Amino acid sequence: MKAVCLLSGGLDSATATAVARREGFDCYTLAFDYGQRHRVELAAAERVARSLGSVEHVVMPVNLRKFGNSALTADIAVPKGREQAEMASQIPVTYVPARNTVFLSIALAWAEVLESSDIFIGVNALDYSGYPDCRPEYIAAFETMANLATKAGVEGRTRVRIHTPLMALDKAGIIQLGRTLGVDYSLTHSCYDPDELGRPCGACDSCLLRAKGFAEAGLPDPALTK
Amino acid sequence: MKAVCLLSGGLDSATATAVARREGFDCYTLAFDYGQRHRVELAAAERVARSLGSVEHVVMPVNLRKFGNSALTADIAVPKGREQAEMASQIPVTYVPARNTVFLSIALAWAEVLESSDIFIGVNALDYSGYPDCRPEYIAAFETMANLATKAGVEGRTRVRIHTPLMALDKAGIIQLGRTLGVDYSLTHSCYDPDELGRPCGACDSCLLRAKGFAEAGLPDPALTK
Repeated sequence: MKAVCLLSGGLDSATATAVARREGFDCYTLAFDYGQRHRVELAAAERVARSLGSVEHVVMPVNLRKFGNSALTADIAVPKGREQAEMASQIPVTYVPARNTVFLSIALAWAEVLESSDIFIGVNALDYSGYPDCRPEYIAAFETMANLATKAGVEGRTRVRIHTPLMALDKAGIIQLGRTLGVDYSLTHSCYDPDELGRPCGACDSCLLRAKGFAEAGLPDPALTK
Repeated sequence: MKAVCLLSGGLDSATATAVARREGFDCYTLAFDYGQRHRVELAAAERVARSLGSVEHVVMPVNLRKFGNSALTADIAVPKGREQAEMASQIPVTYVPARNTVFLSIALAWAEVLESSDIFIGVNALDYSGYPDCRPEYIAAFETMANLATKAGVEGRTRVRIHTPLMALDKAGIIQLGRTLGVDYSLTHSCYDPDELGRPCGACDSCLLRAKGFAEAGLPDPALTK
């Protein structure tokens, strides 16, 4: 049984991929070079793919910089030191327009080629940064669309499923789950705005959510102590 | 008012873009370099974009060849001389997995950046080649998903619309519509399997549907007579 797993190199997608593996799937991992300023995450994705036994790891270039307009792809400052209530209350400039839709669509293309009907994505609706395309109602609508879009769906041979094993977990819960599955978090990268050496800034939304997760899980962050 | 128009360089998307222009939209046209064997269509898309007054024409590379498995992207023979009943009865090898989903998703990303909520696509459910992602129920499901995926949709500022002005037309009807809108069909390219000089094979599904359309419209194909 094959599954396509979106793997960014961060903590969430590593954990979601580990869940897919535990459920018995052969994992085909997919990362995107979309012009992100934190390209260092692509190296992390490769390390994580290898450590989790990915059958094939593809890095797909999709140059969303051609459209601009996000702090993750254009030259807008990444916000720092935000409170979590602030993160949840509005969509931040780090939101990349339609990113998860683009990523899931390309995952769907690969799944169809592999004759797989299972796609894993590490979105979660609790400790997140206010992005619309992380919510359960969005994922459900994508799944409905995907089943009308594809050959297998139309022929009734199978039903595409978008798996979101982290949807109901907070960051600490994700880390605890990953630990039981043997995820090596020292290999992951979360920061939106690393320095030239790839070291995390410690103050962007992604760094703050990660730090809070490890603190609440009662564990040190192995990426900081190595 | 801005619209993103998917523009492949073929007859249908040229006509759909002309409809958007007639409806008063400023058209931002989007073509894809997805590893298609008929890359000559990209030059046609640029010509058509210019002739229809596109504000900006973007060619986005998305290398679907990385996944393979379609006659349009891999080294599988393009079927020739098929009857239309045969085309409609099964999904052909020229189907590119999840292609329209990938294209519409990237169009959605651009629309969001442009603060546009209108996307035009030249799909039609009559004279088509049996692709699942050309049917009205698929388009409706994509639209629902898109409104949950985006910032504007979530904030209730606007409603994304996927316009399919050709959905209920046959090929002859599309050509007649385009003629009234001043589309220069000599600029378009339809063939899936052109020769080295970009000349159409005359026997693939796309050539046969095009020829039938011009015949039924009672018009010569200007791309053949120029």
